[in-house]
Amino acid sequence: MKKVVVIGGGTGNFTVLRGLKRHDVDLSAIVSMADDGGSTGILRDELGVLPPGDVRQCLVALSDSSRMMRSLMNYRFENGGLEGHSFGNLLLSSLEKVTGSFERAIEEAGKILNIKGKVIPVTTHQVRLHMLLNDGNLLQGEKEILLSKEVHKGYKNIYLDPFPVVNYHAISEIMNADLVVFGPGGLYTSLIPNLLVEGIGKALQETKAKKIFVVNLMNKKGQTPNFTVKNHLDEIKKFIGNDVFDYILVNNSEPPKELIDIYAEEGELIKNDLTEDSRVIEAPLLSNDFKEIQKGDLLKRNLIRHDSEKLAIELMKIVNDI
Amino acid sequence: MKKVVVIGGGTGNFTVLRGLKRHDVDLSAIVSMADDGGSTGILRDELGVLPPGDVRQCLVALSDSSRMMRSLMNYRFENGGLEGHSFGNLLLSSLEKVTGSFERAIEEAGKILNIKGKVIPVTTHQVRLHMLLNDGNLLQGEKEILLSKEVHKGYKNIYLDPFPVVNYHAISEIMNADLVVFGPGGLYTSLIPNLLVEGIGKALQETKAKKIFVVNLMNKKGQTPNFTVKNHLDEIKKFIGNDVFDYILVNNSEPPKELIDIYAEEGELIKNDLTEDSRVIEAPLLSNDFKEIQKGDLLKRNLIRHDSEKLAIELMKIVNDI
Repeated sequence: MKKVVVIGGGTGNFTVLRGLKRHDVDLSAIVSMADDGGSTGILRDELGVLPPGDVRQCLVALSDSSRMMRSLMNYRFENGGLEGHSFGNLLLSSLEKVTGSFERAIEEAGKILNIKGKVIPVTTHQVRLHMLLNDGNLLQGEKEILLSKEVHKGYKNIYLDPFPVVNYHAISEIMNADLVVFGPGGLYTSLIPNLLVEGIGKALQETKAKKIFVVNLMNKKGQTPNFTVKNHLDEIKKFIGNDVFDYILVNNSEPPKELIDIYAEEGELIKNDLTEDSRVIEAPLLSNDFKEIQKGDLLKRNLIRHDSEKLAIELMKIVNDI
Repeated sequence: MKKVVVIGGGTGNFTVLRGLKRHDVDLSAIVSMADDGGSTGILRDELGVLPPGDVRQCLVALSDSSRMMRSLMNYRFENGGLEGHSFGNLLLSSLEKVTGSFERAIEEAGKILNIKGKVIPVTTHQVRLHMLLNDGNLLQGEKEILLSKEVHKGYKNIYLDPFPVVNYHAISEIMNADLVVFGPGGLYTSLIPNLLVEGIGKALQETKAKKIFVVNLMNKKGQTPNFTVKNHLDEIKKFIGNDVFDYILVNNSEPPKELIDIYAEEGELIKNDLTEDSRVIEAPLLSNDFKEIQKGDLLKRNLIRHDSEKLAIELMKIVNDI
């Protein structure tokens, strides 16, 4: 069975994993430990645990258990002192406390959820993402960077503090992979934080695995405004050291005009300016499932999104060619 | 396989179940829904769920899963908004929210914990325990009753509000049992609350099961001061309607003098004044595991306690005679 390693964090990882899970591959997810927003941020601050949120999403994506169990993991408390916490985050944090190890916690949660594959934190040390902007302003934490509208003005440095020690399981997964899937995900908040951990870039350069970059659908205002596919690649190259990708997967289907209009305040579609690059694979990757539009504005960031099965089909074509 | 039904709530149930689990019997635990203290009370108030605490204890007692899973269920958060909540309580409450049913939540938690037996809430309605004292003072809630030092002065009425609808699974368990084990447990806060649910007393009168009352080791000041075994039986009889017990199991071993002294402020040993009653079985039931004495005063209420295996051996003698 071919080994596929997915690198990212957040919803991007979830979509890729959920799609690939239905296919015959050996799956691993390498997850950034930079998340510090919402329930995850509170748990980090109050309990001193490692960030559970992105790991939870990967576990749910890989879970072969009932829909009820998956709903349980994503259930969010609505009142009182527990408000905003998702049950799955509390499970991972409690397991970390009981076992004394975040990796062991992931393993035990994986058993409860009957997961197919592995979820690997890129580091098991407590790190915070920092971004020093050109104007001297220091953004502290992934949440602050994500909410900032100033990132696009340029930054002097982006780094994890304290200096992160890589989880060697992550290196070994990359080195033994047949295909590494990088992205989709927030460029500065989900993707690059993985590359800030020493050893990950080198492993991506040295592994014999094929490497594919799955490009985001949309830019986010204040973060990557008007970034093209090439802009994304150039930015990532800085942190890996080389342009390591064998494939670049880009969506070529157009979302409905009204959705683009709804999004206009938040960002715009990413343009493909690499049409001459033979590594580029264009395919319709958009989800047609727009039903959530009725649920209100809160969900609009999920409206223009990848379809997990369409993504998986394109990725499996590559896997089957290896 | 003989069917044994254990009725109570709190630590008493836990001890009986943990002991019997190691023997070859079909186990069910009927649990009072009166608990409203600590983590359980907060969850009831903030989320509107049924009280998970006693159910959690029973599930852990019946669990055949790893020590780690049992530790996880009893793990208590130590900081922030989650402080004091046990993970198992959050699991049950989340499952109740996700499935829409407390009984379904217990069933699913039972699967996760790989339990041997069943845990059945005596009612699945939201009820609160009330006690109207002779002096006109109304104690509202199990916690208030447990903390009151006035209960022994006498009460006019003890009742659940709203009037509870019995869970018919509880009736059916009692009717189909070979042995019903009543107690040990707090007389007014764990045992009688089960009998306040209409139908339970009648089932205890009508079932062909043998019935055994396991008498507490200690009285609690302000609650049952100087209550003898007969006092306990008389009080319980009021709520069942008859003296239904075929056996009365009483400890006859003496705790170390220094432990009795430590306890003196809280209560004293229960005296057996039914030595002539042929139903009485006397046996050494005390736990010799005193190591927790070093952990400080908080745990002293657990120092003089039943040994789950000694209890189980006496109960199994009866089961094997049926």
